[in-house]
Parts: sequence; C-alpha cells; structure tokens
Amino acid sequence: MPAGQPDTESAGRDLTEATLSSSVAWQGAFLKVRDDTVRLPDGSHARREYVTHPGAVIIVPMLDDNTYVLERQFRYPLHRHFIEFPAGKIDAGEPPIETAKRELKEETGYEAGEWHRLALTHPCIGYSNEIIELHVARDLRHTGAALDAGEFLDVIKMSRRELLANIRSGLVTDTKTVFAALWIEQFGYGELKPQMNPDATGVHRD
Amino acid sequence: MPAGQPDTESAGRDLTEATLSSSVAWQGAFLKVRDDTVRLPDGSHARREYVTHPGAVIIVPMLDDNTYVLERQFRYPLHRHFIEFPAGKIDAGEPPIETAKRELKEETGYEAGEWHRLALTHPCIGYSNEIIELHVARDLRHTGAALDAGEFLDVIKMSRRELLANIRSGLVTDTKTVFAALWIEQFGYGELKPQMNPDATGVHRD
Repeated sequence: MPAGQPDTESAGRDLTEATLSSSVAWQGAFLKVRDDTVRLPDGSHARREYVTHPGAVIIVPMLDDNTYVLERQFRYPLHRHFIEFPAGKIDAGEPPIETAKRELKEETGYEAGEWHRLALTHPCIGYSNEIIELHVARDLRHTGAALDAGEFLDVIKMSRRELLANIRSGLVTDTKTVFAALWIEQFGYGELKPQMNPDATGVHRD
Repeated sequence: MPAGQPDTESAGRDLTEATLSSSVAWQGAFLKVRDDTVRLPDGSHARREYVTHPGAVIIVPMLDDNTYVLERQFRYPLHRHFIEFPAGKIDAGEPPIETAKRELKEETGYEAGEWHRLALTHPCIGYSNEIIELHVARDLRHTGAALDAGEFLDVIKMSRRELLANIRSGLVTDTKTVFAALWIEQFGYGELKPQMNPDATGVHRD
C-alpha cells in the first residue's frame, strides 16, 4: 500500500503481496503493461502482469426520473456494437468531475446543472488497476456535441424500464453500464456517503 | 464479426471497425496484448491495443436464500484486499459450467447440487475481450478446498443484506461482484432466458 492509504478491507489475514521488482514490460500508444515480481504470504515469489490505467468516469445522464441518455458504439476488442452510458478516461491531473463534464459534453452534447457522485468501482482487479467513478448528471440541456477525431457513436434515449429489460434479455452487457443502472435501482442516486473514503482505493497510477 | 455471429446490438448505424492488420504486440506469462490496425467508418485508420482473455466465470454460492459465500484476497494491481465472489478463468476447451464447478470447489471447498446460469457480461470493453459468465450455485455441501499453489484467500460468509450494505458503503467495490449481487436483487436467480443468445457475444478468443 502507498503510505497513508488505509486498506479498507484488511479485516482478516494479511495476504499482502510485497513488490520485489517492478518494470514496464510493454508500452503501446494507449496501453501500458507492468510485470512485477512479488513475495507471497508464504515467502515464495510470483509474477504479476497488469495493465496500468489512469482511471475513468461513467456518467448516467437522466433527462428525467425515467429517461436515460446512452450511446451505441463499436468496441473493437469484442468486434461488436455496445449500448453503454457515456464514459471516458481521466486526463493527467484532471479532477474526475471535470472528466465527467467534459465527456458528457463531447460525446452527447449535454451539459448538466446537477451532479451526484455515487460510487467507485474496480472493473478488472485481476489484471488492471483501473478505477471507475460513477456520476449521475441531471438538469440536462443540449448545447451540442464535439466528438474527438476518429470517434463514432450514436446518442440514444432509453427509458429506465427499457434499459432494465435490455439488461435482463442480454442486449446490454457492458458491465459498467449494468453496474450503474442496477446501482440506481438498488440505492437511488443520492450522494456518495461520507463514510466512503475515496483515498482508500487510491493507488500509484503510473 | 466472426462468421455466424449475429451482432445483437446492430440496430442503428453500422460503425464497424474493419481489421486491416493484427499482431501480438506482447506476450507475457499470463497476459497477451494485441495491436491491430483498423479502418474506421470514415475510411481513416486507427490503432487498437487490447488484452486477449480466455473468458471467465463468476459464481454466486448461496448457502440459503439470504447467505452468500465470498472470498477475501489480495489483488496486486490495486495493492489491496478485495471481497469478491469466487471467479476464475476458463481453461482451453473447458465448458464454462465446468470452470464454475472447478473454481467453486478449489477455492471454497463447496460443491453444489443446483446451478443457474444467469447472464453474460463484458467487464472491460475498452481494452479487453474478456467475457464473464454469471452462475449461481445452490444446494451446497462442503467437501474441502484445494487451492492452487501460490493462491491465498479467506472464505467468508455474508448475509445478502450485509453484502448490499457493504456495496453501498464502498467496502465492496469489485465490479463483477457488485454486478452479480445487484443482478440477483433486480432479477432474481432464475435461469437465463431463452431469447438470450450466448453465441451473439462470442468472439475469436485468441
């Protein structure tokens, strides 16, 4: 753990894997892979390969209590189109709420008068250090999109009921989108509770 | 799309990115990264870097209607412990239900008399082709665990109500675990509906 970062789930045995060495194994134009050697709880050594990620936000834009704004785009790793909530990577030094505002505007053309930060989640704990922040955007007004070059997507409106039906039927399978939709069904869209300490999930973002 | 694989979300514009070239950019002991060149809908070219993954299962073991079996383990990419449902990668040629039975037995020591396959989900569509199948295991009997060498985890029991509280408070943040728990709250644990075509999410698994 980095200094000062409490491990919120440390109740129980300490199963920490200590870093013995760490190196960048591969650096592409977008992805970076690290290859570390660790000491396991029994003293033996093991390799840990993982993607390093700057973190991301997912935005649930609500036109009203029962209507969402979503996107439909082609996701190359799966070779198919996906229906998903707007999302994007956090730029270096950017506060996540600014990422949320920027991505919502760029991708869908909406600006929001009301923001709620609901949750943090870790989509890929086996081989990536990605953290996603979930934000809800309300009081929307359409002021025009500005997609990045090379970005192609359709903006769609879908009722809350229809999205749930599409999740249940297997049409919508993007995990972060399902996470966001079901979170709101289960817990509503109130603010993040104060006892949730976002620092507890912080890691070295390299 | 591979031949014979319908694109279930193709209603709307065709935003398909056609593969122009594909190569393995990096091959570690566990991870493999591909670096492809694609033709975008406007004819321009772009790079696509992504992790290839054999697919995985997540298992929700239910001791009774209100009690789950979970695990607590250290996840090195985030440098912290996580509470999560049992999960594991599909071995080459292994039917996912066999992966589910194997991982449940190895990691928690339970065997199940009743299995329900609930859903497919894609945890990381931006940079991985991973697919996760969600299975519920019921009618459990404890016959003894057999962890792989170098695998360290604690098996814990948690009530359904407590898990939801721990998700809400930010103690449980693993996306696939939250996905599974909230799915069951929203839709129950009945069988996968026939209209859900698992082949529609199939991709070349290389």
